[in-house]
Amino acid sequence: MSESAPIRSDDLDGVIVGETAISDVQGQTGLLSYRGFAITELVDVPYLHVVWMVLFGEWPDEQQKSKLKQFMVRHTKLNHAEIDLLQQVGRDLHPMLMLQGMVPLLQIPDDRMLGVDDDAEHGLFIAAKITGLIAAHYRLSQSKVIMTPVPGKLFHENFLQMFHGTLPTPEQRHMLDAAQILQMEHSFNAGTFAGRVCASTLAPIQSSISASIGTLFGKLHGGADQAALEMAMEIGSPDKADAYVKECLANKVKIMGMGHREYKTVDPRAKILKPMAVELCQDEESKRLLATLIAVEEACQREFGAKGKEIWANVEFYKGAVFHSLGIPTHFFTAMFAMARVYGYVAHYLEFKKNSRLIRPRAEYVGHPAGSRDRTAA
Amino acid sequence: MSESAPIRSDDLDGVIVGETAISDVQGQTGLLSYRGFAITELVDVPYLHVVWMVLFGEWPDEQQKSKLKQFMVRHTKLNHAEIDLLQQVGRDLHPMLMLQGMVPLLQIPDDRMLGVDDDAEHGLFIAAKITGLIAAHYRLSQSKVIMTPVPGKLFHENFLQMFHGTLPTPEQRHMLDAAQILQMEHSFNAGTFAGRVCASTLAPIQSSISASIGTLFGKLHGGADQAALEMAMEIGSPDKADAYVKECLANKVKIMGMGHREYKTVDPRAKILKPMAVELCQDEESKRLLATLIAVEEACQREFGAKGKEIWANVEFYKGAVFHSLGIPTHFFTAMFAMARVYGYVAHYLEFKKNSRLIRPRAEYVGHPAGSRDRTAA
Repeated sequence: MSESAPIRSDDLDGVIVGETAISDVQGQTGLLSYRGFAITELVDVPYLHVVWMVLFGEWPDEQQKSKLKQFMVRHTKLNHAEIDLLQQVGRDLHPMLMLQGMVPLLQIPDDRMLGVDDDAEHGLFIAAKITGLIAAHYRLSQSKVIMTPVPGKLFHENFLQMFHGTLPTPEQRHMLDAAQILQMEHSFNAGTFAGRVCASTLAPIQSSISASIGTLFGKLHGGADQAALEMAMEIGSPDKADAYVKECLANKVKIMGMGHREYKTVDPRAKILKPMAVELCQDEESKRLLATLIAVEEACQREFGAKGKEIWANVEFYKGAVFHSLGIPTHFFTAMFAMARVYGYVAHYLEFKKNSRLIRPRAEYVGHPAGSRDRTAA
Repeated sequence: MSESAPIRSDDLDGVIVGETAISDVQGQTGLLSYRGFAITELVDVPYLHVVWMVLFGEWPDEQQKSKLKQFMVRHTKLNHAEIDLLQQVGRDLHPMLMLQGMVPLLQIPDDRMLGVDDDAEHGLFIAAKITGLIAAHYRLSQSKVIMTPVPGKLFHENFLQMFHGTLPTPEQRHMLDAAQILQMEHSFNAGTFAGRVCASTLAPIQSSISASIGTLFGKLHGGADQAALEMAMEIGSPDKADAYVKECLANKVKIMGMGHREYKTVDPRAKILKPMAVELCQDEESKRLLATLIAVEEACQREFGAKGKEIWANVEFYKGAVFHSLGIPTHFFTAMFAMARVYGYVAHYLEFKKNSRLIRPRAEYVGHPAGSRDRTAA
């Protein structure tokens, strides 16, 4: 610490707080890569193979592929204790609060089957439970029976069946794979950083993941996906987008899902998601929502362009249209984000614990000097 | 952000990340003050009056004192839904995981009685529930009935009765008041900072408090209290302290509860707690534990002194002896810490939301360059 010239940065924008080999965000050129693979190279890779690559930096061998698939099916299924607990959670509780709360309450089993270190196996266990919890919380909110995953089925095939009660089409499953791969990891975002601050005290992995989920919930972060689609629903149709955007800008209201602190060009995830959304959104309502989103992005670009500035939609913006067309209710969007991003959280926990030190910044004290006030009124 | 010379600090030691008027930590001189009052001025003030001062920066008036007292009794009592939920939580689950998980699952009522803003009332509601949850989780772990608070009784009188089933002596209640006042707030520690990162995304107060609790759990932070007393139990008696300390230093093992990143002199909280511990620890076992702790601190000071360095015990060190003599089991120490520190978390949430901006640091990418790897093995 330098007493003479302390560093001050309230939002830590541009402050480097560590090294990572997990993902690389190149904001100027709009590139995102995981473990050395551009995301465009990964969107068609089987989902659990990408999971393994993000966590461990290598492709799984045949035995690891098979074991991981079995492991995820086994633990996506909730046991009796977990169902009993979830039954007592409020059925209208926001899914993100449900996840943040349920993760620390999970009883993590001692047996191991993956041949990886304990934290990695715990992390994958938690990721599987999150998948099962999201589906079960939705089923309970609809007064429907909780479904169980089927061995042999693909990861998101099982998830969509557990959520809706019916098997998805191969196209739907593929869209979900791709959307989730795109959101799996994004370097030191706020949620990942909160998990890192938590891990820096040597708290266990479930505490760290829960802290990350709570942080992802905020509407300036993951919660933007819900907010962006709700905005499109509120606007109602593409012809009203221009007036909406102008009013927001006049009143300095933030337009959810537009712009990104890191990307100074198009968000590489939005670039992939936008044509996917166009392809998936076939019914009238989905088409109108998507057209409204596109009109909002264009109106923003016109307004910013008039001031010589550029702006693009970020990943949250079109993702909502994809999720909506997959039948996911708006208030479950951020939980779907968490269901994918959890693998990034686990990867960062594993990487950080190798070389961790307590993260503890400073405050500038601007209050009353010590001993200057009247204690008699206490 | 400066592209030419980015700032790098992995642990943020000395990096100022914001302003606060809540507490002032003067590490060089060993002074800690809340809202302009040195902690020595506050240890004898009624507990809930200190709570109000920490949250709002003013003493409560008579009506506020009366309403806060009623409010805390009302909400320390768990309702049926909360008890049903807690019944399903594993009885041997660590109390800190229980708290981190239960806080986001709480249904926060809409009615208001304190005449303060919504987040402040929500925060005090959560603080009251944490108090009730700790006592109830302990009772369930002992297969004993859950007790309810009694209107008119003092805050920690109720807590100790709900925990043990019997009323504490005035001395015991006073010791707990003082110990909890000393740990109520401590500027931007890791837990408070994690809560701030969470709040910076506009996540709700229960998410922020839960993230802080998860961070406090780590043994380099709040968890040090449990670790320090367990160390004293493991050492067994004062005569073995010297050999223990020498072995730790030879093997570069951290001695829990010794030293503090902020204080370069005696921790002002330890200074108050040490004589309190001496006064309270009257039975043989407590006396032996305390004597062992004192012997460890002295041995550390000798060893560090020989190298020209100084070291002191921090707040976690003697607090354990106080809690132990109050009949609190070791694995509940950190939850007791959370029960007090939650008021600091609430105060920071209220202060931060007035002027918040997304906290998002950067990473230095040290992995494979994008597009450099073989995808065929996927």
